[in-house]
Amino acid sequence: MAFKSDIEIAREANKKPIQQIGDALNIPGEHLLPYGHDKAKISQAFIDSVQERPDGKLILVTAINPTPAGEGKTTTTVGLGDGLNKIGKKAMICIREASLGPNFGMKGGAAGGGKAQVVPMEEMNLHFTGDFHAITSAHSLLSAMIDNHIYWGNEAQIDQRRVTWRRVVDMNDRSLRQITSSLGGVSNGFPREDGFDITVASEVMAILCLAKNLKDLEERLGNMIVAYRRDKSPVFCRDIKAEGAMTVLLKDAMQPNLVQTLENNPAFVHGGPFANIAHGCNSVIATTTALKLADYVVTEAGFGADLGAEKFMDIKCRKAGLKPDAVVIVATVRAMKMNGGVAKADLGAEKVAAVKAGCPNLGRHIENMKKFGVPAVVGINHFVTDTDAEVQAVMDYCAELGVEAILNKHWELGGEGITETAKKVVELCESGAANYAPLYADELSLAEKIETVCKEIYRADSVVMDGKILNQLKEWEAQGYGNLPVCMAKTQYSFSTDPTQRGAPTGFDIPVREVRLSAGAGFIVVVCGEIMTMPGLPRVPAAESIRLNDEGLIEGLF
Amino acid sequence: MAFKSDIEIAREANKKPIQQIGDALNIPGEHLLPYGHDKAKISQAFIDSVQERPDGKLILVTAINPTPAGEGKTTTTVGLGDGLNKIGKKAMICIREASLGPNFGMKGGAAGGGKAQVVPMEEMNLHFTGDFHAITSAHSLLSAMIDNHIYWGNEAQIDQRRVTWRRVVDMNDRSLRQITSSLGGVSNGFPREDGFDITVASEVMAILCLAKNLKDLEERLGNMIVAYRRDKSPVFCRDIKAEGAMTVLLKDAMQPNLVQTLENNPAFVHGGPFANIAHGCNSVIATTTALKLADYVVTEAGFGADLGAEKFMDIKCRKAGLKPDAVVIVATVRAMKMNGGVAKADLGAEKVAAVKAGCPNLGRHIENMKKFGVPAVVGINHFVTDTDAEVQAVMDYCAELGVEAILNKHWELGGEGITETAKKVVELCESGAANYAPLYADELSLAEKIETVCKEIYRADSVVMDGKILNQLKEWEAQGYGNLPVCMAKTQYSFSTDPTQRGAPTGFDIPVREVRLSAGAGFIVVVCGEIMTMPGLPRVPAAESIRLNDEGLIEGLF
Repeated sequence: MAFKSDIEIAREANKKPIQQIGDALNIPGEHLLPYGHDKAKISQAFIDSVQERPDGKLILVTAINPTPAGEGKTTTTVGLGDGLNKIGKKAMICIREASLGPNFGMKGGAAGGGKAQVVPMEEMNLHFTGDFHAITSAHSLLSAMIDNHIYWGNEAQIDQRRVTWRRVVDMNDRSLRQITSSLGGVSNGFPREDGFDITVASEVMAILCLAKNLKDLEERLGNMIVAYRRDKSPVFCRDIKAEGAMTVLLKDAMQPNLVQTLENNPAFVHGGPFANIAHGCNSVIATTTALKLADYVVTEAGFGADLGAEKFMDIKCRKAGLKPDAVVIVATVRAMKMNGGVAKADLGAEKVAAVKAGCPNLGRHIENMKKFGVPAVVGINHFVTDTDAEVQAVMDYCAELGVEAILNKHWELGGEGITETAKKVVELCESGAANYAPLYADELSLAEKIETVCKEIYRADSVVMDGKILNQLKEWEAQGYGNLPVCMAKTQYSFSTDPTQRGAPTGFDIPVREVRLSAGAGFIVVVCGEIMTMPGLPRVPAAESIRLNDEGLIEGLF
Repeated sequence: MAFKSDIEIAREANKKPIQQIGDALNIPGEHLLPYGHDKAKISQAFIDSVQERPDGKLILVTAINPTPAGEGKTTTTVGLGDGLNKIGKKAMICIREASLGPNFGMKGGAAGGGKAQVVPMEEMNLHFTGDFHAITSAHSLLSAMIDNHIYWGNEAQIDQRRVTWRRVVDMNDRSLRQITSSLGGVSNGFPREDGFDITVASEVMAILCLAKNLKDLEERLGNMIVAYRRDKSPVFCRDIKAEGAMTVLLKDAMQPNLVQTLENNPAFVHGGPFANIAHGCNSVIATTTALKLADYVVTEAGFGADLGAEKFMDIKCRKAGLKPDAVVIVATVRAMKMNGGVAKADLGAEKVAAVKAGCPNLGRHIENMKKFGVPAVVGINHFVTDTDAEVQAVMDYCAELGVEAILNKHWELGGEGITETAKKVVELCESGAANYAPLYADELSLAEKIETVCKEIYRADSVVMDGKILNQLKEWEAQGYGNLPVCMAKTQYSFSTDPTQRGAPTGFDIPVREVRLSAGAGFIVVVCGEIMTMPGLPRVPAAESIRLNDEGLIEGLF
């Protein structure tokens, strides 16, 4: 049987005009700001007008640790949204926007897959509604204003060696990682070391995704630390007076983007912060708005549950006052096999023992979700090579842990293929079983928060932080940042910091290399490994084959 | 009498939904791609469908050399469009898009002024429909691919010292004018000198504005020279295989943007190349499409007629096969006074003699327009302090040259204030007097083309080109670029290269400092003075006061 590619399916989509999707949500036409015929932003006035409504139920889709086999978290998120609508519920999905740059390196990431996709897929992987360009502009304005401030006399006494605000571009460009700027003489400023990250790594992105509204956005932007003085005191964005103009540049980007699934159900696609140095979730404003418009809102978090779900719970939900009602943990038989030690090339053959050997990775994530007080169900994302015995092995393993595992075929069948999980999710949501609480209290010390995550979630024996790091954490506590949550930046491939340690490793330590304060976003980034904030292009970039064909269709992007 | 500011007038605009503006042009809804409720792009399919229609009449609005007093070229363009509609003609206007970056330095430029504006003004000065962001992305992709090509083995044998493709950002950022990139070791590439221009200076911008369609766009992008080898042979964009992906990034940006005037008449606002190192006109695709949709199309060109109109005639019209039917040369009494030697502070008082002394600047532009075979009328843009005697002096001067000068009050009254000029323009268009021809033939040598413009238009005694420059021109001729037009980059404030020489100077030479080949755009840039391609921010940038107020309105941008 030959399967159609994601892009072929997406191009055959029977899209409804976006106004019709908005109509179904009772969004009046004047509050739906169209971008073409299949995308729209929701006006702030409309969002303000629905604030008194009760909230729908919030469902998080998370996953086991990712493997090269793929797990299908976004596909499940989209499928579950369609499945909930299929069983007669009013459901919306909330996912992240894609970054432009990486699509020109490797072939682009779709929004879901198979029959469980959000469309228009091509535009979502290109400029979409311009949100990321607005973030690049706002970030670049602050960059220019910092150097301009130094140039015209440096009233704030910025130490040029201690400008922490790097520049950004939404492109994979390794040659900009480290540069010397302001060369060429007096009229170009004071030469200094600088560098570019990719736009999604900008603190502006994290802030946009955590801000409640434009006022909150402006305040958080003003709170960003952009440099230090010679006495090591921080220089804030507000000292440079950039936050007002940045907010103006971001005012449209703050509004959630409405698109649709292949089954014409509504989806917000909004924001896309990194999942290592930031919290990896779609915007708070999209999620909170969706909760006012639908009875069930399905959202996802980046990477596996150890990083993504933990940050969703401890950063996004804590800060936005969200209370999730259920969690779906996505697993695949193939990924279980890889966690059980099978190489990617050998995934085709039935290997029940390997599946069983890999299940403890899933098991640990299941246990972890319980620590947040939210009931879970495991969604097995079906793949054609899965055998019944392999699937049963996963189900049996989960049953032993008291959690149901359900086989989902949304990739092949759309919402119809995931109705059983949808019903289970409704049951969990309506059971009142959820009693969400973050993992740690605001009042713990920063070091204790780091330890709590490392030991409770990763199961590390200990956390290794040298005196310099501990002193830095204490300094921030003295400055009033002690109440912030921590944002762990480590490999997504393992509970440990060693990406090759699949399954459920034990007997390891977590070494903390560096800590960073994202004072505007409102978290402490804890770096536990190499973190790449500016990717490069491969030897043969996808861009070389991307083109418009004679029919005007894009080739090579997917 | 207190006048309302441009932004106050713009905010009071009684805008029609953009669909209604499209309806009036008989653009079917599915071919009008909305961006919010007051902006839209026109689909390529619709543009293709109107190609067999006859063309309307094309009117260029140009001006005397700009002075700090202002001349109001865009205001006249917008007013004339409204005036033509007011007298019952079906007219459209075509103007350029604004660059984002400079708005954060000085207060932003409106699109017209007073009662002659295009709206939505704020969005047109911010992200608008994202065209410039798309250009930045396409340009940045090529930048990344060039360094990536070198990084992975440099198959095309690029000489890293001879990469001519600079980077761009749409922000005034002097600290990026000159940088060293690819620092930090092996994994970041080969260190080299580089720098950023502002986006509007990108050759991609010039190409987008000259390309007939997406196929032409892709071919021109491929033709761009991005570097040279050690043997000085050129490396093209197509050698890096970037043009296909760049075209994909630019596919929406190629479509003209439809907005409206305060009087609800249709306007295309599309493209915005620099007027010194590029040709300074809105896009060919917008102009040619407007000619299919309206009986009269009013457009403008950058700077004064010596640069703007000359490039409009010799580059845009020549290359796009356009035949302008009439020219409106904008002048103001105040600018005539400044050309006559009056300082800006003294412009308030009646100074008829100074007006007369300044008129030869206007006179020379009038004579120049005749050289292109296009009949002209002078539009005196009325200012409140103008006295009747001063206005009469300009009229009398023009009458002596056989050209009518008409006083226009569109700034105060909208289209109603410029109906007399509108009627005159119709008369000129319908008279059949126009017999457009470019100033020089394609077949002249490049040096002869430069001489022709300098002597015929600027009235220089001679052109000073050293042997190196002459050899370079000959080399390009040998490579097949000899048929290209020349694009003069000199000060806009004078016919000469000395910006302080107002009026109609004589007895000067034009020294050519440098020549550059824009092989994709299709012209030779002739640099005759300091050309700034990356502006800086002032001591107190406008950005410091730009913010959203409590009503959600933007403050400080205008």
